[in-house]
Amino acid sequence: MAWNGWGDPARAAPLPQPVAALLHDLLGVRTPHTPSIPMGKVRLGAPRLPGEALTELAHAVGDAHVRADAESRIRHTRGKSTPDLLRIRAGDAADAPDAVVLPASHEEVLQVLRICTERRIAVVPFGGGTSVVGGLAPRAADFTGVIALDLRRLDALVEVDPVSRTATLQPGLRAPRAEALLREKGFTLGHFPQSYEWASIGGFAAARSSGQASAGYGRFDEMVLALTVATPQGTLRLGRAPRSAAGPDLRQLVLGSEGTFGVITSVTVRVHPAPETAVYEGWRFPTFEAGTAALRRLAQDGPLPTVLRLSDETETMIGLARPDRIGTGGDSGCLVIAGFEGEAAEVARRREAAAGVLADAGGQELGPEPGESWEHGRFNAPYLRDALLEVGAFAETLETATFWSQIPELYAAVRTALTDTLTAAGTPPVVMCHISHVYPAGASLYFTVVSAQGDDAVAHWTRAKRAACDAIIAAGGTISHHHGVGTDHRDWYAAEVGPLAVDVLRAVKERLDPAGILNPGVLLPPAR
Amino acid sequence: MAWNGWGDPARAAPLPQPVAALLHDLLGVRTPHTPSIPMGKVRLGAPRLPGEALTELAHAVGDAHVRADAESRIRHTRGKSTPDLLRIRAGDAADAPDAVVLPASHEEVLQVLRICTERRIAVVPFGGGTSVVGGLAPRAADFTGVIALDLRRLDALVEVDPVSRTATLQPGLRAPRAEALLREKGFTLGHFPQSYEWASIGGFAAARSSGQASAGYGRFDEMVLALTVATPQGTLRLGRAPRSAAGPDLRQLVLGSEGTFGVITSVTVRVHPAPETAVYEGWRFPTFEAGTAALRRLAQDGPLPTVLRLSDETETMIGLARPDRIGTGGDSGCLVIAGFEGEAAEVARRREAAAGVLADAGGQELGPEPGESWEHGRFNAPYLRDALLEVGAFAETLETATFWSQIPELYAAVRTALTDTLTAAGTPPVVMCHISHVYPAGASLYFTVVSAQGDDAVAHWTRAKRAACDAIIAAGGTISHHHGVGTDHRDWYAAEVGPLAVDVLRAVKERLDPAGILNPGVLLPPAR
Repeated sequence: MAWNGWGDPARAAPLPQPVAALLHDLLGVRTPHTPSIPMGKVRLGAPRLPGEALTELAHAVGDAHVRADAESRIRHTRGKSTPDLLRIRAGDAADAPDAVVLPASHEEVLQVLRICTERRIAVVPFGGGTSVVGGLAPRAADFTGVIALDLRRLDALVEVDPVSRTATLQPGLRAPRAEALLREKGFTLGHFPQSYEWASIGGFAAARSSGQASAGYGRFDEMVLALTVATPQGTLRLGRAPRSAAGPDLRQLVLGSEGTFGVITSVTVRVHPAPETAVYEGWRFPTFEAGTAALRRLAQDGPLPTVLRLSDETETMIGLARPDRIGTGGDSGCLVIAGFEGEAAEVARRREAAAGVLADAGGQELGPEPGESWEHGRFNAPYLRDALLEVGAFAETLETATFWSQIPELYAAVRTALTDTLTAAGTPPVVMCHISHVYPAGASLYFTVVSAQGDDAVAHWTRAKRAACDAIIAAGGTISHHHGVGTDHRDWYAAEVGPLAVDVLRAVKERLDPAGILNPGVLLPPAR
Repeated sequence: MAWNGWGDPARAAPLPQPVAALLHDLLGVRTPHTPSIPMGKVRLGAPRLPGEALTELAHAVGDAHVRADAESRIRHTRGKSTPDLLRIRAGDAADAPDAVVLPASHEEVLQVLRICTERRIAVVPFGGGTSVVGGLAPRAADFTGVIALDLRRLDALVEVDPVSRTATLQPGLRAPRAEALLREKGFTLGHFPQSYEWASIGGFAAARSSGQASAGYGRFDEMVLALTVATPQGTLRLGRAPRSAAGPDLRQLVLGSEGTFGVITSVTVRVHPAPETAVYEGWRFPTFEAGTAALRRLAQDGPLPTVLRLSDETETMIGLARPDRIGTGGDSGCLVIAGFEGEAAEVARRREAAAGVLADAGGQELGPEPGESWEHGRFNAPYLRDALLEVGAFAETLETATFWSQIPELYAAVRTALTDTLTAAGTPPVVMCHISHVYPAGASLYFTVVSAQGDDAVAHWTRAKRAACDAIIAAGGTISHHHGVGTDHRDWYAAEVGPLAVDVLRAVKERLDPAGILNPGVLLPPAR
């Protein structure tokens, strides 16, 4: 993983010429190249942890698994939001942990939490490091230091139950490795979020990830059947049946807790037979409204494709859903991508029935080419962002969800907030949107914003992001459909659930983590 | 509702002759008739609430809505488990609330909770009164009194959103009325548990009810999209989108909390277009194992019927799934009921495809007769129980769930525990079982036990029930798939989730209900 950008540095590519032209003509991006400073020049705070704390941690996990070198610290600094990248590219690693600790078992995690509780050391559970909401930047000033608890050594496929179609995975497994191990047994997890290539199983659970094939395989939180959690107060083992009436569903209290209640050390999930066939195709709708209505019909009455997404007019015109054609297409209307995975005869049946609904709802069939183009480029957007930052453009995403009847209002409110704020700041943006996760009662909205960076890109975005979050809450949407809360969404999350719910969550945290060492300031406002 | 039995007294019927013969021949039921004593002879404790408390409550909800007469108190005593009925039939209403309070709004509920917090009065939220796990029998000795908070006046269908296909319902709506109101708008809730005719919307949510058509419409906890909850510390409003990554799913903390955290005053649920057609049919499998494998295929690969249940050999032979034929059939093998509801063409397609799977799995098609017989008698079992108690027989049910691979072990363990305990006590039982709720990863097991009552029927059952609960926990099952925890399952629930999870739930309760007035001793062990 690039320390100052996304993914495999070997896959970085310069900006395609049509995109550069678009930035110049449409957004007035004129700034010179703004390259990242080299790693050696990154500014780190002096490590705060005393030697005896490091010795004690090394005793718990082994000498080789406590790292306090600059590169390890830099590589565990914050996540992968655009402000995160802008700061690290500018050489600011003030939030770096004092050390990186790599446990290899549930028991070692418990022991590290015990040491850190005694010594008041803040702990940041670290999986793939792909948070885009400040989930890896806790408020650690009140602590004696902060460690990143990197879970990469907890990377086993523990068990597959082919009868129940479940698999037990350790949290540090990265998604492609988990998928490969399951494929060896004939199964798929079916979880392919944008962060797929780098994100981890533990992160998917802790932050309620949702993948591009959620229509077919469900969200990650819907896949989870059982969890083991190491907390400063001991172990939670949850999930004896797919569903139960034995009290509140405590799995759903751990899912989305973003490392603030404990460290997930094992996850049992549903798995599916690896699909025999996969077909992706494109449809065009005249308007976002017509496309939304078509998606709603499929979500409510079926048949539901495995992948289902609808780009609005702007995103379709720019071609964001087809990264190999960005800026060259100028397609009109709104593009729908419908993907079907599974057993061949069932795929054929479902595809034909879905085609009937889409055509009846006013869609025009475009054949497999747009679908394959989307599928081919589905994990490329974050690489494109790196190239945009490099030439002085700004690019970021945000997302929400609501009920179908409120989608038009929420869509308009967020677009207006982003456009008005950035235009007033002198950097008019392109705001694009798609629906990529549908439910019988509602859907998600995912916005991509591109503009010139302005004088201070971080401050510039902070204003626009605040306006968008205010608009989401005012329009009745949730502050996040799948990115999570982290530190960036914390205040709006508190507004969304209300003060009494925040009190409840704080009571849970105080019971499980009385010293407050786990991700302080993430999810919940810092303790009063 | 009969005060000393189930349902509408006008529908009570004497035991069919074949059943009486079965009891005599098979179970040795010889005891004379054991009729209930009349209501006037029921023994109630002296009411404990001072007059000024009643005056204050009357001020909150209106004079006519605070009732302390004997009949009101008797009708709000405990629930409808067999031990509950045996005790009340014997004249024991020692657990009766001191008064029944009927609020008409969220604000009135808040006010009642405020008064009861100040005066240390225990509060039992009361919907349909159908708990079979002691959910209405809190431990109130440490309080100055106890009220039943009867929610029947909160009985509105507040709103239907036909675009999002959601409906907002008040908690005191009984299920048939809710269904009728939704049908007027063209929708169905699709929730038909055994308790359907009397149970309430609030109870469904608070206790995680699951209906007979759960395969098609989902469990009640899966239908819930938003909740309003009145607690002693204020109001919780949860659910801004079908799914969210904004923190833990707090809806799932309220669902299953059984009135111990707060009083649910509004529930927004998914609704479905009222089905155009409904078809129920029967299939026979040679063994429970073969039938289980067939259900698993449908649950994992589809197509899933709307109703899907499998009786084991004993239940099939007795004919419990076909109440109009109990004891007359002597059917062999294991009966499957498959029901299909929806749009006619879709029902035809699904039915044909399911038939292909069932036949391929070794099933023999029996046509519509057994399905219609099941459908016709689907809510009759509790009436049959009343008739059994009347002639000195004992009948009770219990249920659990686990993953498919563990079903055989759990099934054997529970059957053995029940049979051995009751046989050792000199009252050998008939133990019947069915699977009535299936998921991709597992299923529920629902046991019905019939025996002679023995000398002390309550003590007799307590031993057998304990043995069954121990067996469930030892075999890895959940202590309840859809009956809930109440007071009866509390100790096994604590074993299921472990002491740290109990601590977490207690922390939540202490934050929302610091005086501990809400259903003390239900769900959680009484505070230490």
